[in-house]
Amino acid sequence: MHEILLDAPLDMHLHLRDGAMLEFVAPLSARDFAGAVIMPNLVPPVDTLERLHRYRAAVATATAGHRFAPYHTLFFRAYNEAELLAARPFIIGVKLYPEGVTTNSAAGVSDIAAAAETFGLLERLGIPLLVHGESHGFVLDREAEFLAVYDWLARSFPHLMIVMEHITTAAAVDLLDRHTNLFATITLHHLIITLDDLAGGLLNPHLFCKPIAKRPADRDALLAAALNGHPKVMFGSDSAPHPRDKKEAAGCAAGVFSAPVAVPLLVDLFAQHNALDRLPAFLSQNAQRIYGIQPPIKQLRIRAESWQVPLQYGEVVPFMAGRTIDWRVVTP
Amino acid sequence: MHEILLDAPLDMHLHLRDGAMLEFVAPLSARDFAGAVIMPNLVPPVDTLERLHRYRAAVATATAGHRFAPYHTLFFRAYNEAELLAARPFIIGVKLYPEGVTTNSAAGVSDIAAAAETFGLLERLGIPLLVHGESHGFVLDREAEFLAVYDWLARSFPHLMIVMEHITTAAAVDLLDRHTNLFATITLHHLIITLDDLAGGLLNPHLFCKPIAKRPADRDALLAAALNGHPKVMFGSDSAPHPRDKKEAAGCAAGVFSAPVAVPLLVDLFAQHNALDRLPAFLSQNAQRIYGIQPPIKQLRIRAESWQVPLQYGEVVPFMAGRTIDWRVVTP
Repeated sequence: MHEILLDAPLDMHLHLRDGAMLEFVAPLSARDFAGAVIMPNLVPPVDTLERLHRYRAAVATATAGHRFAPYHTLFFRAYNEAELLAARPFIIGVKLYPEGVTTNSAAGVSDIAAAAETFGLLERLGIPLLVHGESHGFVLDREAEFLAVYDWLARSFPHLMIVMEHITTAAAVDLLDRHTNLFATITLHHLIITLDDLAGGLLNPHLFCKPIAKRPADRDALLAAALNGHPKVMFGSDSAPHPRDKKEAAGCAAGVFSAPVAVPLLVDLFAQHNALDRLPAFLSQNAQRIYGIQPPIKQLRIRAESWQVPLQYGEVVPFMAGRTIDWRVVTP
Repeated sequence: MHEILLDAPLDMHLHLRDGAMLEFVAPLSARDFAGAVIMPNLVPPVDTLERLHRYRAAVATATAGHRFAPYHTLFFRAYNEAELLAARPFIIGVKLYPEGVTTNSAAGVSDIAAAAETFGLLERLGIPLLVHGESHGFVLDREAEFLAVYDWLARSFPHLMIVMEHITTAAAVDLLDRHTNLFATITLHHLIITLDDLAGGLLNPHLFCKPIAKRPADRDALLAAALNGHPKVMFGSDSAPHPRDKKEAAGCAAGVFSAPVAVPLLVDLFAQHNALDRLPAFLSQNAQRIYGIQPPIKQLRIRAESWQVPLQYGEVVPFMAGRTIDWRVVTP
């Protein structure tokens, strides 16, 4: 029987929420991944040491029994040096949301240049900056318009490690080559879907996410970067659970819930493109090198065996609900 | 009290459905309009004389008691001359759907050039061709890609009257000037919304329609054409009711239900732009001249008086549900 082994899969962009949702979804990530970068966009956001420690404890409880390292982040604000020094041992970076662009980002930064002092501090203290890079323009242009901000950040703070989170455009892939301190995560769904899958036939709210999926040429550029094991690109699912009644609604929340299907679907995708030898780079090694992290030792066995994605995990409809996947994670 | 009078408002693109939905929505159009072009995309489509007569009778029953002229259409197929001659007294045109592009268009035409013989017949018999002009490409490019087909049609059949239905792009507006036999309808919602309203914030399935709303520059070009009373442009609501549970769903049907709010919202829009003197051209006179029709004499009185759009009409969520409109149609 055909099997492959994956060492320490890492999800470098993950929404675990809090409360009951955290308790429900965290084990689904902790099962298949050796670690994940945990987003801080709770309500209120994780932007104090006290909230950070409370969230760390909650995530630790929710993932107890799994070999899983949660890499926490702080929600960007004008921190002072003492705050960042106190938080640094417990975080992998600080996450910046332009105000109002995505789920629970109302507390985000509205004037990026005004935050320059904090960027300087992060640079000096060696704390990475993770960015949801979208302007407030027309929905399809937001990422492209934000690339100038990345350019400014990378030039102004040459020793600041900057991660362009969940990139969706060919232009963002191109920008990676222009600055040594610029990196990126790519989701699973942006490797597969385009705007056509969301709105080309019937409208599918379960594929609605921010940034929104773009053109086929953009998807192809992202896929090429992933399949080639581009050294500055890491997998980050951006898995973001919403209850079904918040998705199939007049005002549908942005987010695709891919955590429980991500590893087998990535294996499937890389296998289809004869690129399985590059999957470890995309799914673990690049992140280890870029962030300088050593995740727990964890080997995932994936078998060529079909299974059907459940229509729901609890109240949440997963990516590819009901579809058959040809690879399955063998429970250790 | 400020009032305006509108003579014979016409909706040159309307979906009335059949059965219970027809009985429910038809009076809402017949109340505010003196006439409407009725789309033939039922299941099965209205593409025989027998179905046409049956649908005419059903629409007449559903609009009984109103001064309202239903202008019927046949669903495009390879008709022969006898069929078209028999139907001609009862129709205003033939509606062509590229296959599979929109609601109930599975029976549409897949190879436009192969239909040349029928186009020639329509031209010779003086029957207008109404077209849902979208290619099968990327959802945002479909109308632009189809413009070459309009160009070919207009050049190949110079005496065929061609109506580009529900145009959504600045490029389609530009094309109007290049062929004397090319005309267009524009919906209410495409004068107001862009893709941002559908997917820029939360996803709003009630604004999901085909063709999908485009960029601000496209919306602005459509609005300019309407506000200027462009002589080749007519109002056509494309009002398309779907029950709420088909819109707020995993596979949301395309269509915006605007019939009951169209006239007051158009008055509001034209008033805001100081263009009320051009509204009669857009809403009635252009259509009368282009199609050579004489609708029933019907004068609508609209008063400057606020009202709130109902959250639902029966099972259907209307365009601008819950919003306040500053103009109201005074029941005659």
